[in-house]
Amino acid sequence: MTMEETIKCIRPLDEGAMEAAKDRWDAIAKPLHSLGLLEDAIVKIAGMTGSVRVTLDKRAVIVMCADNGVVAEGVTQTGNEVTGIVAENMTRGETSVCQMARVARAQVIPVDIGVAGTVEGPGLIRAKVSPGTANMARGPAMTRAQAVQAVETGIRVACDCVRSGCRILATGEMGIGNTTTSSALASVFLGRPPEEVTGRGAGLSDAGLSKKVAAIRRAIAVNRPDPADPLDTLSKVGGLDIAGLAGVFLGGAACRVPVLLDGFISGAAALTAARLCPPAAGYMLASHVSKEAAAHWILEELGLSPFLTAQMCLGEGTGAVAALPILDMALAVYGGMSTFADIEMEAYEPLSD
Amino acid sequence: MTMEETIKCIRPLDEGAMEAAKDRWDAIAKPLHSLGLLEDAIVKIAGMTGSVRVTLDKRAVIVMCADNGVVAEGVTQTGNEVTGIVAENMTRGETSVCQMARVARAQVIPVDIGVAGTVEGPGLIRAKVSPGTANMARGPAMTRAQAVQAVETGIRVACDCVRSGCRILATGEMGIGNTTTSSALASVFLGRPPEEVTGRGAGLSDAGLSKKVAAIRRAIAVNRPDPADPLDTLSKVGGLDIAGLAGVFLGGAACRVPVLLDGFISGAAALTAARLCPPAAGYMLASHVSKEAAAHWILEELGLSPFLTAQMCLGEGTGAVAALPILDMALAVYGGMSTFADIEMEAYEPLSD
Repeated sequence: MTMEETIKCIRPLDEGAMEAAKDRWDAIAKPLHSLGLLEDAIVKIAGMTGSVRVTLDKRAVIVMCADNGVVAEGVTQTGNEVTGIVAENMTRGETSVCQMARVARAQVIPVDIGVAGTVEGPGLIRAKVSPGTANMARGPAMTRAQAVQAVETGIRVACDCVRSGCRILATGEMGIGNTTTSSALASVFLGRPPEEVTGRGAGLSDAGLSKKVAAIRRAIAVNRPDPADPLDTLSKVGGLDIAGLAGVFLGGAACRVPVLLDGFISGAAALTAARLCPPAAGYMLASHVSKEAAAHWILEELGLSPFLTAQMCLGEGTGAVAALPILDMALAVYGGMSTFADIEMEAYEPLSD
Repeated sequence: MTMEETIKCIRPLDEGAMEAAKDRWDAIAKPLHSLGLLEDAIVKIAGMTGSVRVTLDKRAVIVMCADNGVVAEGVTQTGNEVTGIVAENMTRGETSVCQMARVARAQVIPVDIGVAGTVEGPGLIRAKVSPGTANMARGPAMTRAQAVQAVETGIRVACDCVRSGCRILATGEMGIGNTTTSSALASVFLGRPPEEVTGRGAGLSDAGLSKKVAAIRRAIAVNRPDPADPLDTLSKVGGLDIAGLAGVFLGGAACRVPVLLDGFISGAAALTAARLCPPAAGYMLASHVSKEAAAHWILEELGLSPFLTAQMCLGEGTGAVAALPILDMALAVYGGMSTFADIEMEAYEPLSD
């Protein structure tokens, strides 16, 4: 499906199914809304699928891997080569998200959407749009056509997952320099100056942080991205990994399955997807909130609340995967519990005075 | 073991094992401290057991069930009978925490430490100290001897779990009226007025909340608990469930296993245990933070940070159980990951300038 066709498929949430799911929660023998955001998440998922019966049995974490030309500006602690090394380790099940995904029973799907070097390995999806982006501090990171191609790659991968039985998708990424592109997107989309939305990534010093802010400021000055044109912004100051993940959010929404955000980079992709198609936000679920300052604002802008506040900032989709067992537990209560009627107890009354 | 003997057994954390665990984390091929609080939790567990090798394979959630005489003051939405109904459902695996514990592979151990009515069911630990406490708004909730007996029951149950192979304990409770006793304890131990530490429990109206605050104020005025004497405070304005859980925290610490806090009530018990024996706080891990206002202050006082902020307030140990898979995932990375040396990559440098 093209991006335009996908966007046209995305429907608002089914209010009837959400009401029915709320009623089910309220009938369960426990204090009203006492599982808080977990109840809200299950209700939202019912709204996505249009059914009060929710299953999350099969799940995958899609990890978009790509390099960023802006690394030439010295905005990172490590070089480009790390992207390819970690992407290959991912195909062998040897990175952090792979370890966590085993516990969460999620398949890890690494996608080479733009790694600079050659990546090989079992289960890798080969979909390189280009070997990394251009340096956005000197000109556009990519062409508009490349951005569309990356978004459509994400749509295709997401829809393939759903066709193969996935009922929930988690988003992850690997790309040295991608907190820089994420900060640039956040700056443009949220209308905040670069220094407010830029953090230390994988552990920058103060000097490194200044360089990073300067590179973002330059990228915006050089490219003049139009915040009202999300594709223009994405192609000029985004990255292929972010474009791919924006596609995953759109594809998941079109296929009516929940898509879990990870941290800051995944959040920047979610924000891009929501700017391309506002109803897509209905299919997003927050997981954790990254230490990167702008992550909070992105979640706020998308109307999402995280479950986890464990100060994680690893990337790879680790935060999104960490939320899966939490949702499993919510679903165990939602699907397996007695109602007040079953146990002959009076229901709690809603709060009123 | 008696309470006094148990307290004498509790040792400070093993700094050497903690250093070794930190070194292991720092050697793993991922940005430094990028799993945040999850890394800290595993390091702390290494300090508890004295070994850099951490396993959490077998786990149990101990659910202390008891009634509270203060319910006579109209401080709750439901009557005492609910405590026994839910406790019995728990023996049949039919409550919220049971559903969640199945996902988290934890055994649920319900303990009748003071339910007013008769409770029957498979796997129930029968350890009724008395059929509920007296109404603390009219006099002491229990005698000092009863409080000690309940604490020692908790110690015994915790140590039995560890003897049978448990490597981590989660705490839970069921007792109508126990947010009232928890608020009373929080008020005395934290030196804050009742209105600051009292919330809506399972869903009180404004009028109900006023009654609850008034009952707590009266309980403190009538009994004059001595904050410097934790047993005096516990027996006068606490509950048998809280006393039992305080024992679980002490017993777990004496047996050198981590004990997960749940929400507000479990937090009040943890605070009581830490006042009885400050080094016991070294063996505590926070899970989530309850919506009850005072829950934050209790965690702060204990120096604990929660992983989960999902606005849960169900009780039964649901928040503590929800944290187990998160720790499993952290442990999968800690135990299963390549180090920088393995993958021939340079380590990230610590933040410095």
